[in-house]
Amino acid sequence: MIHQQYEVDDHLHEECGVFGIYDMDGNDVASTIYYGLFALQHRGQESCGIAVSDTSGPKGLVLSHKGMGLCNEVFTPEDLESMKGNIGVGHTRYSTAGSSTRENAQPLVLNYIKGTLGLAHNGNLINTPQLRQELARTGAIFQTTIDSEIIAYMIARARVEQPTVQAAVAEAMKKIKGAYSLVVMSPRKLIGARDPYGFRPLCIGKRGNAYILASESCALDTIGAEFVRDVEPGEIVTITQKGIESNRSMCIPKEQHARCIFEYIYFARPDAYIDGVSVYESRLIAGRSLAKHHPVNADLVVGVPESGNVAAMGYAMESGIPYGMAFVKNSYVGRTFIKPKQSSRESSVRIKLNVLTEAVKGKRVIMIDDSIVRGTTSDRIVGMLREAGAKEVHVRISSPPFLHPCYFGTDIPSEDQLIAHNRSVDEICKIIGADSLAYLDEECLYEMSKGLGICTGCFNGKYPLDPPTEDIRGDYQK
Amino acid sequence: MIHQQYEVDDHLHEECGVFGIYDMDGNDVASTIYYGLFALQHRGQESCGIAVSDTSGPKGLVLSHKGMGLCNEVFTPEDLESMKGNIGVGHTRYSTAGSSTRENAQPLVLNYIKGTLGLAHNGNLINTPQLRQELARTGAIFQTTIDSEIIAYMIARARVEQPTVQAAVAEAMKKIKGAYSLVVMSPRKLIGARDPYGFRPLCIGKRGNAYILASESCALDTIGAEFVRDVEPGEIVTITQKGIESNRSMCIPKEQHARCIFEYIYFARPDAYIDGVSVYESRLIAGRSLAKHHPVNADLVVGVPESGNVAAMGYAMESGIPYGMAFVKNSYVGRTFIKPKQSSRESSVRIKLNVLTEAVKGKRVIMIDDSIVRGTTSDRIVGMLREAGAKEVHVRISSPPFLHPCYFGTDIPSEDQLIAHNRSVDEICKIIGADSLAYLDEECLYEMSKGLGICTGCFNGKYPLDPPTEDIRGDYQK
Amino acid sequence: MIHQQYEVDDHLHEECGVFGIYDMDGNDVASTIYYGLFALQHRGQESCGIAVSDTSGPKGLVLSHKGMGLCNEVFTPEDLESMKGNIGVGHTRYSTAGSSTRENAQPLVLNYIKGTLGLAHNGNLINTPQLRQELARTGAIFQTTIDSEIIAYMIARARVEQPTVQAAVAEAMKKIKGAYSLVVMSPRKLIGARDPYGFRPLCIGKRGNAYILASESCALDTIGAEFVRDVEPGEIVTITQKGIESNRSMCIPKEQHARCIFEYIYFARPDAYIDGVSVYESRLIAGRSLAKHHPVNADLVVGVPESGNVAAMGYAMESGIPYGMAFVKNSYVGRTFIKPKQSSRESSVRIKLNVLTEAVKGKRVIMIDDSIVRGTTSDRIVGMLREAGAKEVHVRISSPPFLHPCYFGTDIPSEDQLIAHNRSVDEICKIIGADSLAYLDEECLYEMSKGLGICTGCFNGKYPLDPPTEDIRGDYQK
Amino acid sequence: MIHQQYEVDDHLHEECGVFGIYDMDGNDVASTIYYGLFALQHRGQESCGIAVSDTSGPKGLVLSHKGMGLCNEVFTPEDLESMKGNIGVGHTRYSTAGSSTRENAQPLVLNYIKGTLGLAHNGNLINTPQLRQELARTGAIFQTTIDSEIIAYMIARARVEQPTVQAAVAEAMKKIKGAYSLVVMSPRKLIGARDPYGFRPLCIGKRGNAYILASESCALDTIGAEFVRDVEPGEIVTITQKGIESNRSMCIPKEQHARCIFEYIYFARPDAYIDGVSVYESRLIAGRSLAKHHPVNADLVVGVPESGNVAAMGYAMESGIPYGMAFVKNSYVGRTFIKPKQSSRESSVRIKLNVLTEAVKGKRVIMIDDSIVRGTTSDRIVGMLREAGAKEVHVRISSPPFLHPCYFGTDIPSEDQLIAHNRSVDEICKIIGADSLAYLDEECLYEMSKGLGICTGCFNGKYPLDPPTEDIRGDYQK
Repeated sequence: MIHQQYEVDDHLHEECGVFGIYDMDGNDVASTIYYGLFALQHRGQESCGIAVSDTSGPKGLVLSHKGMGLCNEVFTPEDLESMKGNIGVGHTRYSTAGSSTRENAQPLVLNYIKGTLGLAHNGNLINTPQLRQELARTGAIFQTTIDSEIIAYMIARARVEQPTVQAAVAEAMKKIKGAYSLVVMSPRKLIGARDPYGFRPLCIGKRGNAYILASESCALDTIGAEFVRDVEPGEIVTITQKGIESNRSMCIPKEQHARCIFEYIYFARPDAYIDGVSVYESRLIAGRSLAKHHPVNADLVVGVPESGNVAAMGYAMESGIPYGMAFVKNSYVGRTFIKPKQSSRESSVRIKLNVLTEAVKGKRVIMIDDSIVRGTTSDRIVGMLREAGAKEVHVRISSPPFLHPCYFGTDIPSEDQLIAHNRSVDEICKIIGADSLAYLDEECLYEMSKGLGICTGCFNGKYPLDPPTEDIRGDYQK
Repeated sequence: MIHQQYEVDDHLHEECGVFGIYDMDGNDVASTIYYGLFALQHRGQESCGIAVSDTSGPKGLVLSHKGMGLCNEVFTPEDLESMKGNIGVGHTRYSTAGSSTRENAQPLVLNYIKGTLGLAHNGNLINTPQLRQELARTGAIFQTTIDSEIIAYMIARARVEQPTVQAAVAEAMKKIKGAYSLVVMSPRKLIGARDPYGFRPLCIGKRGNAYILASESCALDTIGAEFVRDVEPGEIVTITQKGIESNRSMCIPKEQHARCIFEYIYFARPDAYIDGVSVYESRLIAGRSLAKHHPVNADLVVGVPESGNVAAMGYAMESGIPYGMAFVKNSYVGRTFIKPKQSSRESSVRIKLNVLTEAVKGKRVIMIDDSIVRGTTSDRIVGMLREAGAKEVHVRISSPPFLHPCYFGTDIPSEDQLIAHNRSVDEICKIIGADSLAYLDEECLYEMSKGLGICTGCFNGKYPLDPPTEDIRGDYQK
Repeated sequence: MIHQQYEVDDHLHEECGVFGIYDMDGNDVASTIYYGLFALQHRGQESCGIAVSDTSGPKGLVLSHKGMGLCNEVFTPEDLESMKGNIGVGHTRYSTAGSSTRENAQPLVLNYIKGTLGLAHNGNLINTPQLRQELARTGAIFQTTIDSEIIAYMIARARVEQPTVQAAVAEAMKKIKGAYSLVVMSPRKLIGARDPYGFRPLCIGKRGNAYILASESCALDTIGAEFVRDVEPGEIVTITQKGIESNRSMCIPKEQHARCIFEYIYFARPDAYIDGVSVYESRLIAGRSLAKHHPVNADLVVGVPESGNVAAMGYAMESGIPYGMAFVKNSYVGRTFIKPKQSSRESSVRIKLNVLTEAVKGKRVIMIDDSIVRGTTSDRIVGMLREAGAKEVHVRISSPPFLHPCYFGTDIPSEDQLIAHNRSVDEICKIIGADSLAYLDEECLYEMSKGLGICTGCFNGKYPLDPPTEDIRGDYQK
Repeated sequence: MIHQQYEVDDHLHEECGVFGIYDMDGNDVASTIYYGLFALQHRGQESCGIAVSDTSGPKGLVLSHKGMGLCNEVFTPEDLESMKGNIGVGHTRYSTAGSSTRENAQPLVLNYIKGTLGLAHNGNLINTPQLRQELARTGAIFQTTIDSEIIAYMIARARVEQPTVQAAVAEAMKKIKGAYSLVVMSPRKLIGARDPYGFRPLCIGKRGNAYILASESCALDTIGAEFVRDVEPGEIVTITQKGIESNRSMCIPKEQHARCIFEYIYFARPDAYIDGVSVYESRLIAGRSLAKHHPVNADLVVGVPESGNVAAMGYAMESGIPYGMAFVKNSYVGRTFIKPKQSSRESSVRIKLNVLTEAVKGKRVIMIDDSIVRGTTSDRIVGMLREAGAKEVHVRISSPPFLHPCYFGTDIPSEDQLIAHNRSVDEICKIIGADSLAYLDEECLYEMSKGLGICTGCFNGKYPLDPPTEDIRGDYQK
């Protein structure tokens, strides 16, 4: 039990990356999953795990290994080598502090009426309390506080009646509500499923005779697999020795789709394509739109690294103002940065970011960031630019202001902590000390998604599903 | 995932030690549990854990910490300090290699219809497959391979109907069959229960305003508590802020009691009292009986450390032959002794035991051991005595020969691996190279237990409960 | 002893970062050193350490802690808190595999004629074998294989005659030859020294009543200190409770200065200033020069991250061709990336870098990298761009070709491993599969250093000091 | 840097065990050293290490691995397997807290004028300050605070003039004063040396074509080697491919020998023979002597485990009073027992020892212990016997009272902390609450050593060498 003091930062955090693979030639897949998780590490740095199922072994033996930390902290080459099996799932996780325990690490491996299941999940259910209560009322016990356990129960119960695991997954999907992308491994199958709204991404790849499921397409690139297609919102794909089959019975009309727009704005890697849309291009569009609708005279456009860089390039392209580099980010200060206890004058922001004085002194700077949540770091970054001699600092945000909570897996804090709640843009501009401030217009979001259905609940309170009435983020057990 | 090569030894292993405490004054109990587990460490050195429930905190928060290894490897002072709570349970575990994983460490902490439960368990159920199947058929999922999870389910399901946890425990006990001593913690209660046959021990202690439950009374001595009484076979005791109450509805007639006699012969510490009988005295009686019924002329009586020492003293007292010390045991070679891979001529037995040449040379030696299982080490020990110059080596065993498997938690191997199976005492004597060999007479076992009901199934095949028809020790998931 | 399989990459590696601080107000400095090392982590990721000297304690007690790994792996908050002391030195190290052991981690802490010394060192001596032999001949014993131990001996021996530590440092500097920047801590002093040629950087900062010494000025920014000035080549600065004093007796004429140009090209962070020259600006100049002298028609200029980015911006500015982003670098794949043993088709380059297809497809791309050493990765990166649809790939290198080894701390391999050795630029261009290739012209290096004296030995074989005749990189003890 | 809270106990501690092996057949020796260190673990549990020299490799490569903790904590099978080499030395260390650091772990591996040396050392020099000063005056630097470094320097300096390592060892022995047993490994030799007084033991063994040096003969038994002979006080043995040769030039007359009598009383394992005398028999003699000269009527003789047991048997044999067992020792509470921070009522003594009530109630008990240092635990143990119902408790100590400090490696505290200093036996008896108390008569010590020369300085202040005038135990660097 190591108690690390994480730096509080002012960014959003996603909850997970999932990865699954079925190698029909019978090759071991653990190390490929490891590489895949590396490519998804940005989606969760708190814990990770791999489970593999050996189709050649007796009784559907499942081997799993998981732990707190980054992939290269949790796995040794020996661990990976000892995990023999040609079907496997992996997971990389972020969570809020309360439930950040090894017990909650995924994949969940369990035994049920039909043998073993390995399950990894990205997303957030909104009817967890009801499902949990219903299950408890019929004698269920819960050993974790993660939604995945609820989902596993729903599948296990459905499986009593249903002829196949995939049918049980479909049955379970009728009852679970919210955002989820799932990879499920049974002794002889790999199943992927995505919630009907398509909140979280999931795509299909292929390498030789192996099928792959991954949260983002960049994980396919990393392992040298080719992109096949995205799992459709509501679709269940089942991969067996015979190939891939699809169940679209849970799909809903495209107009109701509600992809989380923050996948494009911030969560996903720029080299990912989600539902056919390039994340990189989405961000360029956001930057261009800011330049078009919120122009300002300046000498330099810079991004707050890493997430602001692409939008900054878009702004530069559109405005003709040169793109530049104003910050050096210390890449060794990750999420696991341990803050010493000794009271010191060192500022957290300065440890992560330093200004390139040479680049900004005497300049009018346009600084692009992807969002402002609490606003606790924006003022310091603006201040750093001014200290370095920037004549003017104009802040442009590549998303609209956060005004409402998210119930679908993005950890936007409660309204009273949101700087944009009950404040005008001018007021915020003053607080962060900028010369001007502008946010992305909400309409641009549809341009970014190339017209695909998106969820804009955090901006306008219009959620695709009725938000839950009780707090679903409660953590009754540490 | 560290793969340690454990030394194969020829001793039996018990499965667990349990400990529970309720401090009515509200003091934190984690460090007291830690000390208690230390005193029960001999019952299991594979993994251990502690869970505490804070009655003052919100929503019945349970904090738990468990891991592979000995108490002082698993817990740091910081771990213990961070576990605030005045009700707690602890566990120390031994298991066969297959299921030796962190997932299977106890206590089990879970959420169910009425909140949280912490559960620790010593023993072995014999109707696990039936119960597991019944549970699975109604949609249960299993995340471990331990009986405790089955018990937890049975309690959780019973609790749906029953008004209290203790009533649910009683209801569950109607269905689970086999050997078990349980400690269960709910947010406001500590419950102890023992199977109706009394296979495994459990006793009650008191220190100030705190009640304690422990597998052996020596754990009470260690923490400075006084012994109150044993939990009776079949009894359920419930400790709340109001005090202790008892439910004896599951008790059966004393004549049917079936304490595991190996608790007296080998498992328990000699300073323990089980159901009023001193383990030390039991072993003296065994030694005396061997001297009475299997006398031999000799110069010295020695025990194979540690477990043979007390019986050797009994033999010496009865026979008048001086008690001595023939072996030095290396106390640093524990169960976690790691054998190097380099092929070497070092023998496992010699690393653990060395002969005191000075004490045995030219002497006729009576060597007392508690049991012979496979016989793989006895011949080496006899050989070491001879090499050191012993003129004669007479082996006396303080238990009858093992002829049958045990289904109640003692890891006696299958019959074909038992040296006494299909062999006469004379044949065994030749195999181990002794000048004479004798076993304890079965009748003496009742003398050892002071007439209390005991299980003698491993000696004569007469089990108190019908043995299971399928293998209950299977480990479907690693 | 964890054996990690590091990725072989085709970049140069520096050997160390050093940091020292003297807080005249008596505040503990360990956590400030920790932050300082974070800012210097890019100079060495193999091992790190901190030593502090408590001026208030008895007998000049020195506390030190060092280990293999990154700062946040080696230090816990508890470690830092336990290190009380207001004078301290820190070190972060890179080395070749052979001597990569904990024994060789720095700072070196030692006792000698006048008490204790803590010493951290960046650079490479070229007369180590002679000095070592001379010392051995008079009975010295060596417990490490690092130059710092030789330097410590030279100081200790000089101190027998010299009145002060700083005088002993000066005396030692007469004998040691090569590249070095030193921080030395005695119980009451902090000393900084730089070799007369100024190969490696070292600067002075101030925060309140604390003086700081650091390899790069960005470490001052990180801890909120102001830059005072650089330590001059050959200068020894001594910080005591009375303030700072300087000894320039070892300084040589400016014309003979020989700063390692690779500090500007690659090693240092772009936000550092070395001897008054901005590293960022140096790289812009290199990029501009490439554009001026090696122009090509194209649609996009991109850098190979991170080190090629600034030069790419310079190229873009000069040429008017838009600067863009072609690669996404996985920031979780650090030097400690552990390669699984399972043979797999995953390529090392792909794991670290992915191409932004959207950005390059159909484009003529100019790709800027800082150097080509063996050329083992350049062809793969060019190939990745082509696979992503780049129509043309023009490679520009922001340094001249490597033709000669370095004896002063840059791990340029032997000539036969250098791709540019005995090959024309055209031949190299073919090997890496580019449409065109050009290197920086040697003259531009002086422009980059703003006329400061630099070492260009690796490009033209003209070394400021005679190179050693025997191999100085031998590692006689693992 | 783990800060463990060790239990303070009232026993003496030795400083080290040493082990060396030369396998002439070229087999790897690391795992044999590991087993040997296991058998010497009782001589030091703080840190341990192994160094091997590969005679087949290039340039006398030495591989070493050391760390804080017990052998099975410091070494993994992989560590041992990676240490190829047929000559090796090992060390297991105890030290006082101040210098308990990894830097001080042994063997010391170093490079000097003639290549590499590995050196492990048991004992304590008394002219360390003079030697250190002399060395420092000629420019030596010290990286540890252990005597071994001084010895290494003395050998290295002597080697400049001397033709062989063994000659250099002989030369060094002329200057170092005090207690030491040394094993030294050069690339082609294994050397053992013992100080002229023979304070600390060292013996020679043989297994096939391998020669072994070990602190105690029980280490030879453990690895299956036969005992050859003891290294004589003052002797230097040199093992090469040609066999063993001896240098006795430093030997002194037998009458001046001064073996530490506490090796027999307490430090060594009872199965060891030191200079031909059985440790087991020595302890029996002490027990018998106590019975002869300090008889008392009683029902039972018991030892305080483990060290008091053999003397208790001697007492029982001589007196005819039955030997019994009164205590159960918790073998899991080792030196690394970590005490939780939570203030608790648990007593340290009770955690380690419990009384066998059944054995002592109503009895008059004679309790044998090996020594009383501060007396802090004796009263509690006597008290525990009384609480358990013992009618009388008579304490007999198998050594004379401690009245003086030891300068030769036994950590007897300063006089004012010794309970026997300025107190009569009657006064001590009252303090510890016994019915009677007697110590071993000093004359018996010579009987115990079979007439061999011994050091009795701690009892009577008569030291074989003049004690140092300044404190030699100072620890100037942590």
